[in-house]
Parts: sequence; structure tokens; C-alpha cells
Amino acid sequence: MHTAPFEPATRLLAGPGPSNPDPRVIAAMQRPMLGHLDPDLHELLLDTVELLRLAWRAPHDALVLALSSTGTSAMEAGIVNLAAPGETIVVANAGFFGARIIELARRHGLKVVELKADYGRAVPNRLILAALERNPQAKLVAVVHAETSTGVEHPVSQLGAALRETGHQALLMADCVTSLGGVELDFDAFKLDYAYSCTQKCLGAPPGMAPVALSARARERLVTRTHEPPFTLDLTELERYWIQRPAAYHHTAPILNIYALHEALRLVHVEGLEQRWRRHRVAGAYLQQGIQALGLRLLAEPHRQLAPLTAVLAPDGVDRAATQTALLREHGIEVGGGLGPDAPAMWRIGLMGHNATEETAERVLTAFEAVLDRQHALAAA
Amino acid sequence: MHTAPFEPATRLLAGPGPSNPDPRVIAAMQRPMLGHLDPDLHELLLDTVELLRLAWRAPHDALVLALSSTGTSAMEAGIVNLAAPGETIVVANAGFFGARIIELARRHGLKVVELKADYGRAVPNRLILAALERNPQAKLVAVVHAETSTGVEHPVSQLGAALRETGHQALLMADCVTSLGGVELDFDAFKLDYAYSCTQKCLGAPPGMAPVALSARARERLVTRTHEPPFTLDLTELERYWIQRPAAYHHTAPILNIYALHEALRLVHVEGLEQRWRRHRVAGAYLQQGIQALGLRLLAEPHRQLAPLTAVLAPDGVDRAATQTALLREHGIEVGGGLGPDAPAMWRIGLMGHNATEETAERVLTAFEAVLDRQHALAAA
Repeated sequence: MHTAPFEPATRLLAGPGPSNPDPRVIAAMQRPMLGHLDPDLHELLLDTVELLRLAWRAPHDALVLALSSTGTSAMEAGIVNLAAPGETIVVANAGFFGARIIELARRHGLKVVELKADYGRAVPNRLILAALERNPQAKLVAVVHAETSTGVEHPVSQLGAALRETGHQALLMADCVTSLGGVELDFDAFKLDYAYSCTQKCLGAPPGMAPVALSARARERLVTRTHEPPFTLDLTELERYWIQRPAAYHHTAPILNIYALHEALRLVHVEGLEQRWRRHRVAGAYLQQGIQALGLRLLAEPHRQLAPLTAVLAPDGVDRAATQTALLREHGIEVGGGLGPDAPAMWRIGLMGHNATEETAERVLTAFEAVLDRQHALAAA
Repeated sequence: MHTAPFEPATRLLAGPGPSNPDPRVIAAMQRPMLGHLDPDLHELLLDTVELLRLAWRAPHDALVLALSSTGTSAMEAGIVNLAAPGETIVVANAGFFGARIIELARRHGLKVVELKADYGRAVPNRLILAALERNPQAKLVAVVHAETSTGVEHPVSQLGAALRETGHQALLMADCVTSLGGVELDFDAFKLDYAYSCTQKCLGAPPGMAPVALSARARERLVTRTHEPPFTLDLTELERYWIQRPAAYHHTAPILNIYALHEALRLVHVEGLEQRWRRHRVAGAYLQQGIQALGLRLLAEPHRQLAPLTAVLAPDGVDRAATQTALLREHGIEVGGGLGPDAPAMWRIGLMGHNATEETAERVLTAFEAVLDRQHALAAA
């Protein structure tokens, strides 16, 4: 056991998240700590909610707040709050996080209708709508807007409107962990019912919280449901703390993480959401072009390729893990590998939040080229 | 909506928690952020576990880690991991947090045998043992070591040994949210099976994580259980990330909060656990003496009075809420009120972690005296 202060190395976090937070976000965590029941903190919560509403583009009747935990628990919160054991969920599974929705739904006792796409592809919306037609009793339909395990964007913008047209009762749940703040997303126009994200990717704050949004339809479900979710994940209870005034105690909120989230959302607002999406697009395109110029192939179908997350197939003869280790140890750059036992050999490169710049992309490309060149030289020797 | 940077006032956090973290703990959160799958972070997790094991005084075969959430979710994790719906839990309810255990157990579908104490008292161990004898099928028995809503310490040190002597299968779960790092506590010698705490009280870190410890008996339950808890709270899954190497991805850990927890535990280790308990004892006694010298009465039975948390009964004719507001707004001091609709009118004063000093106690007493004097003058006028 080491008992000296921890002195971490400096990393460029260019994996699937976390990203390096904006220094102003980290600085906000040094401000004097208020208590979780301090009226001044409750003001900050409401300000954070309104900034978050803008980031989601959620309407005024949507419930917006952040869980004091991570994206996965917000995924679970959607499942356990909006469907009761025995009810049906339709899940578009296009990678690790689609599969995780299924696993969490199964644990909650839901019947799962799974629609599976190959790695690098999305499940077509028409198949989702057809599955809902075959399952009129379904209470939820889940898609992953930005599948962090493959870099594929689900065409969610058209799904909500099509779903509403059918008159189906199912609520539309979207995993926006890698899209909020970095990819075009409009909770209102996309007609989402439940969306969740995290703080540590395109929003550019450290990990520890999970922003969510619920439509009026989803809020109605909270009121009429007869089952009770775990207290930790109960969105009705969380609303009593975040929104109701005087606030009701639920748990001790992670105050410094709220400072960080507020500052991160403030910076999103100052930059402008569309400008921020553009910045992510430009940086992602620069990286993807450069990766292909190195002779490497991308996993995602080109028209579904996300900007903040690029999955690169490791070519035959190249040691995927050794490449990652060399990037980390020699260049101070973190990139991810594949997620889950079935994933093809790949690297996942993220340009998110503060890191979504051409300069960062260039730095990653330069390091990649150096490491791969040496691997090729070793293989040839 | 305000879009300027948030500039909180400086507070002395002398309520029931959070406490003001040691400045070195806050400084640790400014260090370069690693990713949650970085091998260097995984080393830090293991170091944190060993420091935490010392703070719990947990044996080598105990599972020790921290949830990426708050004390309440660690309470819920114990319930949902260690008992299946339909099984029985015996709960000693001596205040708000005892009642919360019952509420969470009820949500999980457990049968609850409740033993209730009046405000300011503890449930006698002999009643707990008698209830277990009447309920041989009980799987869990829960007590609150330090009841944050009343300032009462449960005599947990003798309960575990007595329970083991009876040969009863029930696992002993203890809420140590306000005791870990501030009150004598020995997971091993007390024969606890599941204990949980938080970071923001006597450990002196900001809120956001929840340290837990499981005995070998409790770990066995994890292996043999047939029900599945929510993924977020699944201690088996969390062990795969915290302990197993290579670590398995579960969620994105709140990296900066882990830095803070590690630094806080390091400072506990450097100070020495017994010295730290002594410091809390001395500060608490100083405060309690001073409060009584002001003519105020304490809620807790004297021989059960906790050091880190003192519940003070608001005298007739004194406005409890106005006193709190004056302390906050005029003196920059946060103290708590009563918790829950049934609580008598009271203030709760905490001297925890970095704040457990006679100087802090004196500052609180001086402010209390000034505010109460003015209230008396107003009442007399």
C-alpha cells in the first residue's frame, strides 16, 4: 500500500470518455462548499436545471435534473421508473450499450423484444416501428442515440414523430451519453420521452452526475404507475429535491460536482449549442480523414459516423493492446479499445467537450502514426 | 436564470454533514484527471481500498470498496444485495435513518420487523436479539450505529458477538454514515457483516461516494443468492471493477471524487484512527458542555450521546427556523434542523472531520449565544 499523496500523470483523454474538462470547470470545484440543504445551493440547482433544459432543448413542461451518479444509473432509472416488472420493452441493440439496456431491463423483470444490428450499423427505424406494431402492449422503446461502443449514430430525429403518429403508448427512451452537448440533439423536436446522458463526455465536466429529461408523457407515467422503483433511482423523489421548494431531502447531493456541471453548462450556453455541435463535427471529420489517410478503416457506416467518437478497426498484424499502451505510456494519450467480448479488435478515439479541436485531433494522429510505424517496422524486422 | 459563474458564500458547515473538507482534500481534486480504465487509476483504487480497510478495521477477507453515489444508496445496496424480496429484515428504528431503512426494505419487497425507540434513545440490544429469536427466518438485522437525526449512538459493539453466539443466520448491517472516521468503530471486532458510510462527514471529503465493507459471511450471500439487484447497486459487479484485475468496466467512476477520498483516507491514516476519534470526542464534549451552559437541553440520552453530532432541543418561545437562518446569513454557519415530520423542534450541530476542533465548537457557541440573546430580547420587548 502506498501512503504518499497520489501524483497522477497528465493525460490527453482521447478515449470514449471521460474527456479533459475545461480548466474553468475544474476551477469551479474549488469554490467554497455549501451544504445540500443551503437555500443558495437550491438556487444553483434551479439555474442548473434551466441551463440543462437549454442543452437538451427540452420544453418547459419537461422534468429536467441530474442524478448523483453515472450514465448507466440514469439508463437504469429510465427502465425502473417507466416500466413495471412484467411489462414489455422494445430495444434497438446496436452495440454494448444497447445490450446493457437489455441486461438492465431483464434484471427489472421486463419482457424484452430485441432488435439487433451488426457492429457498425444502426437498427432501421422501420424495424422498430414494425416491432412496436407487433407488440401493442410495449411500454418502452429504447434506442442509443450515440452508441459509444461503435461510433454509430441512431437516426433518432425521425423516430419520435413516427411513433407518435402510430398512436402507440410506448415511451421513447434515448441514450444520449455521448451526444448531449456534442451532437445535434433536440429533445422537443425529436419527441423524446426520456433521455439521459453523463457529465464527462461532450459536456466537458468530470464524471459523477447524469443529466436526464422527461417529457410530459413520461411524467404522467410517474404519477400513474403502481410499482415503486429503488429509492436511489426514484425520479419522483429526485424531483422533490431538485425542483420542489422548499426542497425535500433525498440524499446528500455531490455539491462540488454540481458546481462543475453548472459551470460546464454555462460554458455550453456561452459558446452556443449549434457552434458546439459544429466544433465537434469539424474536429471529428479532421480526425476521421486523417485516420483513413493512415490506411486505417473506420467501423461505422459512413453516413452514421458520429463526430465525438470514432471507432477504428485494428488491422491484421497490429497489436491492438500494445498500440494503446504505447500511446498511453509514451505519448500520454488515452484511447479506448473495444467494449465487450464480441467486439472486433478496434480503438475508440473520442474528441469530446474541451478536446473537440483540430489541434487535439492532430496530436492524436501524430502519435498514432508514430506508434503504428514502429509496429510495422517491428513486424517487418 | 443566472448565467454568471456561481460565487458561493463561505460557510462553516456545522450541520449534520457535509463538513468542510480539509483543504488538501480539495486540492487533490485539481490533479490531472485519469480515465476510469487507466491502469494507474486501478492502482489508486487498490490503495484506496487498503486505506479504507484500515479505517473500517475490516479484516483481509472483507470486501471493501466505495459506491459512486451517496450513503443512502449504500443503505439500499445492502438491502437489495443481501436479502431477496419476500425475505425478512429486523430493523432497529431510532430515528429518521432507521425509518429510511424500513422504507427501502419495503420497496424491495422485504417483510419488516420493526423495533422502535423514542427520539433520543436507542433500541436495546436484548429486544433486537429477542426479535431475531422470534424470527429465525430473518436474513438481515439493521441498526444505525450513529443516528444522524438524533445524535444517538447504538451500542453496536456488543451486538455482533451476541448475534453470532445465537447461531442465527441473519447478517448484521450497520449504518455508519456519521461514525466512520469520527467514532470508535471496528468492523472486525464488532462482528459486522455489512457497514456503509459516506465521504462528507467524519472522513472530511466532499459528498459523492459511499464506502462499504462486507464480511466473509456477507460475501458468501452474494455468491449464493438467486435474486438479482439493480445493476447500479450490484456489489458483485462493483467488486469486478474495484478489486478484480484486469478491472471490468461497470460504470465511469467519479475520478476526482476518488482522488478526494484517497487523500481524505490518507490523512486519516497519517493522523491515526484513535487520535481522530479522540479529537472528535474532545470537540463534541466541549460543544455539548457549552450548549448546556447556555441553558439548552440535548435530545440524546447522555450515555448514548455521539461526539460528531449533537441534537439540541429548541426551547419554547424560540423560533427554530429563524435561529438557523440568522446563523447562516449573519454568521456564515450552517446547522441543521430536525429531520422528518415527527421530529421535535431542534437544531443539529455537527463537528466532523476537519471541523472537529474546540475552536470550531467555540465559534458555533459564540454565534448561537448572540442569536439566542437577540431572540430573547425580542421576545421580552
